[in-house]
Amino acid sequence: MPAPFTTADFQARMARAATAAADAGLAGLVVTPGPDLTYLTGYQPTATTERLTALVIAAGAEPVLLVPKLERPDAEQAPGAEAVRMADWTDGSDPYAALAPNLDGGGRYGISDSAWAMHLLGLQQALPGSSYAALTAVLPMLRAVKDHDELERLAAAGAAADLAYGEILGMPFVGRTENQVAADLAALLIKHGHSQVDFTVVGSGPNGANPHHEAGERLIRQGDTVVLDFGGLKDGYGSDTTRTVFVGTEPPEEVLAVHDLVRRAQQAAFDAVAPGVTCQDIDRVARKVITDGGYGEYFIHRVGHGIGLTTHEPPYMVEGETRPLVPGMCFSIEPGIYLPGRFGVRIEDIVTVTEDGGLRFNGTPHELAFVN
Amino acid sequence: MPAPFTTADFQARMARAATAAADAGLAGLVVTPGPDLTYLTGYQPTATTERLTALVIAAGAEPVLLVPKLERPDAEQAPGAEAVRMADWTDGSDPYAALAPNLDGGGRYGISDSAWAMHLLGLQQALPGSSYAALTAVLPMLRAVKDHDELERLAAAGAAADLAYGEILGMPFVGRTENQVAADLAALLIKHGHSQVDFTVVGSGPNGANPHHEAGERLIRQGDTVVLDFGGLKDGYGSDTTRTVFVGTEPPEEVLAVHDLVRRAQQAAFDAVAPGVTCQDIDRVARKVITDGGYGEYFIHRVGHGIGLTTHEPPYMVEGETRPLVPGMCFSIEPGIYLPGRFGVRIEDIVTVTEDGGLRFNGTPHELAFVN
Repeated sequence: MPAPFTTADFQARMARAATAAADAGLAGLVVTPGPDLTYLTGYQPTATTERLTALVIAAGAEPVLLVPKLERPDAEQAPGAEAVRMADWTDGSDPYAALAPNLDGGGRYGISDSAWAMHLLGLQQALPGSSYAALTAVLPMLRAVKDHDELERLAAAGAAADLAYGEILGMPFVGRTENQVAADLAALLIKHGHSQVDFTVVGSGPNGANPHHEAGERLIRQGDTVVLDFGGLKDGYGSDTTRTVFVGTEPPEEVLAVHDLVRRAQQAAFDAVAPGVTCQDIDRVARKVITDGGYGEYFIHRVGHGIGLTTHEPPYMVEGETRPLVPGMCFSIEPGIYLPGRFGVRIEDIVTVTEDGGLRFNGTPHELAFVN
Repeated sequence: MPAPFTTADFQARMARAATAAADAGLAGLVVTPGPDLTYLTGYQPTATTERLTALVIAAGAEPVLLVPKLERPDAEQAPGAEAVRMADWTDGSDPYAALAPNLDGGGRYGISDSAWAMHLLGLQQALPGSSYAALTAVLPMLRAVKDHDELERLAAAGAAADLAYGEILGMPFVGRTENQVAADLAALLIKHGHSQVDFTVVGSGPNGANPHHEAGERLIRQGDTVVLDFGGLKDGYGSDTTRTVFVGTEPPEEVLAVHDLVRRAQQAAFDAVAPGVTCQDIDRVARKVITDGGYGEYFIHRVGHGIGLTTHEPPYMVEGETRPLVPGMCFSIEPGIYLPGRFGVRIEDIVTVTEDGGLRFNGTPHELAFVN
């Protein structure tokens, strides 16, 4: 287990966030439970409920964490509790009235993407002169560039997912259901140090053609391609990797051709990673390979998403995202081809940006693997 | 397993929601993944992500469900899929532009409480003339009054939780950690038919004085009071019950007195349940008993919350909630007394309103139980 982040770490992160907010022309940030609050304070309430918990950060002011009174004892145990001034509100009182004195009534704030609409509406009503923007829209890079300790955690999470993949290759596929293989994958992630499994996609045969199919009661049989996409959190940071395997030893020509096309698209996008390249370029490079190969219409999602405290976060590798890559960013590269009613292929690694180009946190082979 | 809800059920719920919205002066509703969407369509996306999924309901118009293109195959499998017109948007396109044509640009909408702030801001920007209110603020009763099939599910969930409580009383407490007892409770909920465990509070000794303490590594010992508060989902509907037990056979006078005071407060609030009584009255009745007993300052939360597809939803039994109770409403009655550094006591039942008064879905004894 890596050393926990310290009060000083959280203070530095909050100070950096306050500066970034000011630089973006904002009065400050309103951060609700979720990965932003975890990043800035280490505080993770037991559950996200209708009760308002909010951190207010502004340049030149002490950060304030407002919590429901009955959750205060938990909040005071948070690793970053000493870096904030804590305040509370009681059931039956108005939490927005309690938060308002900590905000500039005419200011513009970045608010956590996943803050409840109910809370945003409450703030808009309590402070009609204030305005808000989604945190990832105004400060998309707040958590996007990982520091050394975070990169270590992400690398370890990737390595653990790779071990799970290695073990699953030796387990039986034929005659078992997708759900059974998914349960094995989940157990392997836990075995290799994950505290939480976020997804275990086992898309066999035609189910592989639905990129968000998880796993079901379909019996896996000889001749199936199977998309395996799995990940979760290890020491608080995410893993997410996909390999497509073949059940048997004699894949049809088209499976081989499609798999090779996806492999080349993934490699091309990886080779394009470098500081200053735009996010959408990474998507374009992969998409061009697949389009040139004649399967463009079957690549129906963006090529990647950032990863860190969550398994889906900025930066997104998608058309229209023109921000440049910066060393320390971490994201997936996961092109896929989905042939409805037939099969799907996806290959995914987590990649970080270095001064010299991309570095993979997943190291298992990209060649089509055969399973029994 | 109860019979699943049908397309006709979802159609009726959506029609009722559209009418209720119109009656409340709204142009319609914008419903995002979560219990409201489950209630209205049966659709539960695998994960709630930054990708917009939204149902638009308006009187006189066909309901529209907008989903990310890659999640469309899943959405089409939802029980209520045939009751909506489905539309999709593709990564890289603007989901708010895709949703906007289905909204009245000058209309006021109720939006799911837990819709992401990011999505609300996107809609506010795409349709500057539109306005929004939190769904529970404008239609707090949308899911509050349960129909017969829902009451059956809630009663079954309560009965299952009672069985779990009955079994835990026979298990050892002394010398085990709170986490171990909590794990037993979770396993018992699953054993008795829960698909999901939402919380297993085991607050022993001074930990019981923190109402939101879950469970930790504290070793339970002779003479502890232990607050057991646990629940989850069974066939999609929630359970939530609390009993406070004593480890040993000779509780101190104050434990007996405080426990009896909480028991009387719970009973008084239950006895007050009747159609037309306001929610805040239920809170007041319990609070008066505890205040009159001299412990008012140690009862630091509202007395109850609604329950249904979630374990926390309207109606809230809290000061300021002046809406009347209606037959079919279901909520917790859970007064507590928390003596910092010493111990806590809470007693909680789920209760439904009938024409004749309250009916409990939890039936285990309220007297202080002794464990070993």
